[in-house]
Amino acid sequence: MDIKTYIYETGKRARNAARIMARAETDIKNAALEKTASIILDRQQALLDANQIDMHTATEGGLNMALLDRLELTPERIDAMADGLRQVAKLEDPIGNMTKLKQQPSGIKVAQMRVPLGVVGIIYESRPNVTADAAGLCLKSGNATILRGGSESINSNLAIAACIHEGLVAAGLPADAVQVIETTDRQAVGELLRLSEFVDVIVPRGGKNLIERVSSEARMPVIKHLDGICHVYIDDLANLEMAVKIAYNAKTQRYGTCNTMECLLVAEAVAKTVLEKLGPMFEQAHVEIRGCEKSRKLLPGIKAATEEDYRTEYLAPIMSLRIVKNIDEAMDHIEVYGSHHTDCIVTEDQQRARRFLREVDSSSVMVNASTRFADGYEYGLGAEVGISTDKFHARGPVGLEGLTSQKYVVIGDGQIRQ
Amino acid sequence: MDIKTYIYETGKRARNAARIMARAETDIKNAALEKTASIILDRQQALLDANQIDMHTATEGGLNMALLDRLELTPERIDAMADGLRQVAKLEDPIGNMTKLKQQPSGIKVAQMRVPLGVVGIIYESRPNVTADAAGLCLKSGNATILRGGSESINSNLAIAACIHEGLVAAGLPADAVQVIETTDRQAVGELLRLSEFVDVIVPRGGKNLIERVSSEARMPVIKHLDGICHVYIDDLANLEMAVKIAYNAKTQRYGTCNTMECLLVAEAVAKTVLEKLGPMFEQAHVEIRGCEKSRKLLPGIKAATEEDYRTEYLAPIMSLRIVKNIDEAMDHIEVYGSHHTDCIVTEDQQRARRFLREVDSSSVMVNASTRFADGYEYGLGAEVGISTDKFHARGPVGLEGLTSQKYVVIGDGQIRQ
Repeated sequence: MDIKTYIYETGKRARNAARIMARAETDIKNAALEKTASIILDRQQALLDANQIDMHTATEGGLNMALLDRLELTPERIDAMADGLRQVAKLEDPIGNMTKLKQQPSGIKVAQMRVPLGVVGIIYESRPNVTADAAGLCLKSGNATILRGGSESINSNLAIAACIHEGLVAAGLPADAVQVIETTDRQAVGELLRLSEFVDVIVPRGGKNLIERVSSEARMPVIKHLDGICHVYIDDLANLEMAVKIAYNAKTQRYGTCNTMECLLVAEAVAKTVLEKLGPMFEQAHVEIRGCEKSRKLLPGIKAATEEDYRTEYLAPIMSLRIVKNIDEAMDHIEVYGSHHTDCIVTEDQQRARRFLREVDSSSVMVNASTRFADGYEYGLGAEVGISTDKFHARGPVGLEGLTSQKYVVIGDGQIRQ
Repeated sequence: MDIKTYIYETGKRARNAARIMARAETDIKNAALEKTASIILDRQQALLDANQIDMHTATEGGLNMALLDRLELTPERIDAMADGLRQVAKLEDPIGNMTKLKQQPSGIKVAQMRVPLGVVGIIYESRPNVTADAAGLCLKSGNATILRGGSESINSNLAIAACIHEGLVAAGLPADAVQVIETTDRQAVGELLRLSEFVDVIVPRGGKNLIERVSSEARMPVIKHLDGICHVYIDDLANLEMAVKIAYNAKTQRYGTCNTMECLLVAEAVAKTVLEKLGPMFEQAHVEIRGCEKSRKLLPGIKAATEEDYRTEYLAPIMSLRIVKNIDEAMDHIEVYGSHHTDCIVTEDQQRARRFLREVDSSSVMVNASTRFADGYEYGLGAEVGISTDKFHARGPVGLEGLTSQKYVVIGDGQIRQ
């Protein structure tokens, strides 16, 4: 079978499975998740063996250490995968929920009912645990899934998929509800992105190149995450001790994550006090600061920030710094240079807090908390298939609800239109 | 200024206006709507004069009667436009609403806040009242709007836009919050569809050609409405008198609307009784029926339906008809041939009604009511910018809420991540 036909057939099977998944009862879906979790634990050795083949090929191919680490399965990671599926089983099932039921003047009752999106395509790189995580969320939200992992993790992914298939079938659900694309040929991605007939949404997870390719080629909606250029603004009415703690945590708790602070904005009136504390702390943590002219007078050792710096997601121990007049200048900076991901104000002033929350146009807007909290688990969503920086449909961490939609339901007793 | 620059500047101004609109208070937005309504009424003669120029050019250009009728402004239509704006002023403002506020184990409080999408581009044909309707909904939902009407209605649209600008300014809002593109050059549409930097969503309203062009060229999300191939399924457990009334109304109340029934499905067991009544009624209404083989035995006068018929949105006094075994066969037919717009079951059986509501994957699913109710006004949304047949973001009639999104709001008191 050629690749075009293979992907078409995969999509068609997914669509058929999606109809069954859409009407599956909650306990059946939960049984599939629980059974898959048990099978994954039982099959630990087989998963490690499959992963060893991938690790071997990747090492030979010269994959770098960071990527090798992401690729590796360990007994702990396998436990975590199973545990993740059990957590998803415990989440409330959004499907079938009716809201806003209201009788209209004509006598019809109108409500909105939450329904699955249908077929979710997920294109990801390296980490094989995404196979189980993403499949679990899609399964619980009544969708069928087509997973396309990185070629370096193909054996691991197929071994995990085999566990999921058994779990689905044991619960009486179709194995086709979760399909892993079995070829590593890159043409498969292109074919998948054109398959709008059968695929309702694509979620790319990986580096910027992947996301840009998917966004430009996909003929269906994409839930995507571009840059995370996150800001902390320390207001002159902030609790400065708290502000220092939050800014330091937002930058240093982890460097490579999308919700890490990349730019610190400080109100002029408190800049001296704040930077006298934060400067040495960042220096000790080996964080390179690139600052505006004013800030360089307070922290003479630091580099000058360029325009480009303010537009950069470093994902590294580097940050930019700007002293601003007030909340307005801070919000203007965020609007111009930010990526609408996560931005925080530290202030004790309720009115400014409210203004920031309402006016800053980002998927997560925070008052007095580290930007590192922008995360599905921390928000109580249980897990996330990704964080969306788009405004359309799902915004911010995308959990079960982001994989659903609402349709209108009308219940009448014979009403006709006059 | 060339057209590319003109559209770019229009987009940039809209983005700036959008920031102001996003934080505008409800009473200010309502004042702008009320003032615009008054100005439209005061300016009746000027609007009629501008419309006369368009009507004259269109008549000379040989526009057909139906389109001329859509283009024409009358005193009654001007009253309706003003009234529509006042109705929108009365709708609840969705912006700023916080939902799902919940404290997480870390101590942070997480909620979702409803916010505008930003800049909404609307591309429409002929009917000048869309200028006021769409602008009103966008204004109330805190968005800025760029409107591109048909070239045949340019003078009418600009005259209406002038009223809106005065209304906005009188209320202290920026005139740029509603901009009508002043050139009729078709290049302007292409430029607008590429302007993803400033335009957050495009809503095309018009014929299939327009919608297909917009869908394929737009670099931003599109809220669109494709076919309305709506079904009524008469179950064997239906109240047959009610079923006949609903099917007749769904087809004949208006022929040219997207929520008109295009295909009737009847359960075998009741087909004879139902068609003996409905056949003559449709005949008398001059509705041409194209039926399956079985139905042609019961209604010998009718034409045979082809595969193509079942996939056709007639928008005319023509309909297809198929006798099916049961609800399963009906739902299969709807899945294969339908357009996921609006589908109805007539049945007295609660369980079948629930199955149909849950399993039929359409933006509106109905029990015992005419498909003609699928409409923003009938659903209590007040008005609609369109009906979406997509599953992503807004589904079904798109009112104020469909022009908004939800962001996450996090309120802490100094929490950092461990």
